[in-house]
Amino acid sequence: MANDKKLVEEITSMNVDFAQWYTDVVKKAELVEYSSVRGCMIIRPYGYAIWENIQKDLDARFKATGHENVYMPMFIPESLLQKEKEHVEGFAPEVAWVTHGGAEKLTEKLCVRPTSETLFCDHYANIIHSYRDLPKLYNQWCSVVRWEKTTRPFLRTMEFLWQEGHTAHATAEEAQEETIKMLNVYANFCEEVLAIPVVKGRKTDKEKFAGAKATYTIESLMHDGKALQSGTSHNFGDGFAHAFDIQYTDKDNQLKYVHQTSWGMTTRMIGALIMVHGDDSGLVLPPMVAPLQVVVIPIAQHKEGVLEKANEIKERLSRIARVKIDDSDKMPGWKFSEYEMKGVPVRLEIGPKDIEKNQAVLVRRDSREKLIVSLDELEEKVTELLKDIQKGLLEKARALRDSKTYRAVTLDEFEKTINETPGFIKAMWCGDQKCEDMIKEKTGATSRCIPFEQENISDKCVCCGGKAEKMVFWGKAY
Amino acid sequence: MANDKKLVEEITSMNVDFAQWYTDVVKKAELVEYSSVRGCMIIRPYGYAIWENIQKDLDARFKATGHENVYMPMFIPESLLQKEKEHVEGFAPEVAWVTHGGAEKLTEKLCVRPTSETLFCDHYANIIHSYRDLPKLYNQWCSVVRWEKTTRPFLRTMEFLWQEGHTAHATAEEAQEETIKMLNVYANFCEEVLAIPVVKGRKTDKEKFAGAKATYTIESLMHDGKALQSGTSHNFGDGFAHAFDIQYTDKDNQLKYVHQTSWGMTTRMIGALIMVHGDDSGLVLPPMVAPLQVVVIPIAQHKEGVLEKANEIKERLSRIARVKIDDSDKMPGWKFSEYEMKGVPVRLEIGPKDIEKNQAVLVRRDSREKLIVSLDELEEKVTELLKDIQKGLLEKARALRDSKTYRAVTLDEFEKTINETPGFIKAMWCGDQKCEDMIKEKTGATSRCIPFEQENISDKCVCCGGKAEKMVFWGKAY
Repeated sequence: MANDKKLVEEITSMNVDFAQWYTDVVKKAELVEYSSVRGCMIIRPYGYAIWENIQKDLDARFKATGHENVYMPMFIPESLLQKEKEHVEGFAPEVAWVTHGGAEKLTEKLCVRPTSETLFCDHYANIIHSYRDLPKLYNQWCSVVRWEKTTRPFLRTMEFLWQEGHTAHATAEEAQEETIKMLNVYANFCEEVLAIPVVKGRKTDKEKFAGAKATYTIESLMHDGKALQSGTSHNFGDGFAHAFDIQYTDKDNQLKYVHQTSWGMTTRMIGALIMVHGDDSGLVLPPMVAPLQVVVIPIAQHKEGVLEKANEIKERLSRIARVKIDDSDKMPGWKFSEYEMKGVPVRLEIGPKDIEKNQAVLVRRDSREKLIVSLDELEEKVTELLKDIQKGLLEKARALRDSKTYRAVTLDEFEKTINETPGFIKAMWCGDQKCEDMIKEKTGATSRCIPFEQENISDKCVCCGGKAEKMVFWGKAY
Repeated sequence: MANDKKLVEEITSMNVDFAQWYTDVVKKAELVEYSSVRGCMIIRPYGYAIWENIQKDLDARFKATGHENVYMPMFIPESLLQKEKEHVEGFAPEVAWVTHGGAEKLTEKLCVRPTSETLFCDHYANIIHSYRDLPKLYNQWCSVVRWEKTTRPFLRTMEFLWQEGHTAHATAEEAQEETIKMLNVYANFCEEVLAIPVVKGRKTDKEKFAGAKATYTIESLMHDGKALQSGTSHNFGDGFAHAFDIQYTDKDNQLKYVHQTSWGMTTRMIGALIMVHGDDSGLVLPPMVAPLQVVVIPIAQHKEGVLEKANEIKERLSRIARVKIDDSDKMPGWKFSEYEMKGVPVRLEIGPKDIEKNQAVLVRRDSREKLIVSLDELEEKVTELLKDIQKGLLEKARALRDSKTYRAVTLDEFEKTINETPGFIKAMWCGDQKCEDMIKEKTGATSRCIPFEQENISDKCVCCGGKAEKMVFWGKAY
């Protein structure tokens, strides 16, 4: 049990230093290792397995809504990046430039894609001719690069993995419908799979994507009261279509511009999982994304029949869950800590006394509650427990989010709240960017979104006191 | 039917110009589109869906053999690339260099990974300490970049998608076992899934991977008699371990170097599928990788009950196969050509007369054979047919490969054969690189592999006439 203690003690408590706690968890749970490349991370097997589960579920949702996967080049010629003015201004300062191929200097430098709007537009201009070619509902899974100054694993890295959906539609209405549809896909995924409740809304013009007509977002709240932008969906209108000349002949034989959208979700959601569900013993993973849902730990494994029974249980459970047995020569207490650190939802202990009584001990990672179950009903109980944990994590996260969501009517109140009890602040806004800037300057909080579900908190802007009709979610953000 | 003709006529016959036929197929089957980035291709939905099927099957085989997926950075600092001498000499001339991040010039340039041995080694040096940490059985799916002068879709592009396995072992024996195990995984995958027969063997020293102790390969033969290196598996010995100082403490408390392997397969296998199975009507896809296994074409679909029945059939078949219905307003003949071009294994036609007789017409893409089947046994018949096509394609490809495999005892014979009837040439080799060079110079053929299954063709080297014990497969290669 000495080993057990040691492993736990190595983590900083989240109340002492949340940032250090986060760093400790990503390392000790073996999600990530730093690399020799500044700002880039190595995603280790356990971290990558979470990403694979995220991918698999999201990809099925994309396909169920009619999307197809493609793969675009990772390079964008400078001239192509420059075709849409706002877009290039937004991204050019933070891209990596390839200037040489082998020994030869390139005549035109290439940037490593920070996002692929320009490549998709270039492609769409080539393949869209008639209304029969629409809609185009494409997605790609890839890595992108943004030259960030300060980086943190999963949350902000120079290179990250993501998916980017890019669609083209005949009408503005269809594009808007797609934009909201995919925002809802993200929101449902976050709640149903990651057990992370989100606020859905529109970004202010200041915060919208470079080149978009409107950006929609889902925002989640971390344990430390900071907000995390968790997925965005952009309606481009026909701006890119004009810049790239993407036109089609409609049924009425008229040439028309297409209307486009894009939407993305990234490996930063692994950071969200850590910061929403984790505790001072490490990760806590919702069963639906956990690489390992049940770990079987034999107790007194040297005694006759224990390993045999433990393996039999493992075999039985592997038909209904992702399960492994740890029969290594480490002490059980050490193993307990290790799988707690890794956030495995259920630990199953089986020892000689349990075998005698035809039972096993199940321990929940989230509540640490112990349940003694008969081996005759093991499959039912484990299935039930995993569902219960999944549900419980969402409820707990929602309660936490709600407990950290405040209202402010005046700027003083706003400032006091954000400093003393960080979280989401609901406050009215007149719509003027000057007030948005002022709030950021005074409080460090940015507008997270104008939520779809509005509430009338007052009729005055929290900043200037002018007439305000929009309630905005504000917060300090990752 | 005029449209039908037109679509087919647009393809060059493979006997007239094989290279042009290939280019026509990749474009017309909508596998690939050229991009604004020189040497890079856009993999379109139909092409990418083939890759997804390849990935899914291979990935399951990797996991079944104990491998885990990870993700490494896409950049390699110059100093890291230079750590292993032969490796850097092999790759430095063909890498893309990032020299600027945003506006800032980098103090050390980064190459875009052409392969990731150096990154894995760097990581292994950090995480391997004890024999308990071994073996490490890692794989990653990613894209890599090699600055090629001339490119062809799937076969040779500046950027391509692949998987690269990288493993570290305690002993030389384990590393050798892994190297051969993964070569066999590739060979079985090619035969069982892609229906492509391969020759397994070792590369000569001249042809081995930069930095490897031994490279093993699977070689397949295309319709035009050219060879395609289809997968390679390298045994690195402890060369990289010395260069990167990857040591572990063994059970006997001694510090030892690890032994490593790497192995890769790429999107070029889509090129192999085209060139092994395709014909003058386009692609022919083995059912196991076909994005679409059955296409349902309603005949006289405006007549009452036809669409209804066709949809009912589609629903039934979608439980056992990847199926879609094409009820667009194109002529049936046009649709036939389109799905032939795309290589869909089975076409199902259903019209008013069929409905009357409670039957459907199944047409095989490979042999164009028509089968009339009762709707009562549709599922069984389709399942059977798909299996039969899968098996038949492998047999046909094997027969083709065998018919294009020759023997040569003298260099004259070798030259005459390779020029008149391109294919694999089996010939003896003394082991001297000078003869290998001479053969290439005289015939354009390179050594493909020293096959595991040896045959004694003569006891003299085909080139110098000296004593020869090794039979080598030679061929002109992609």
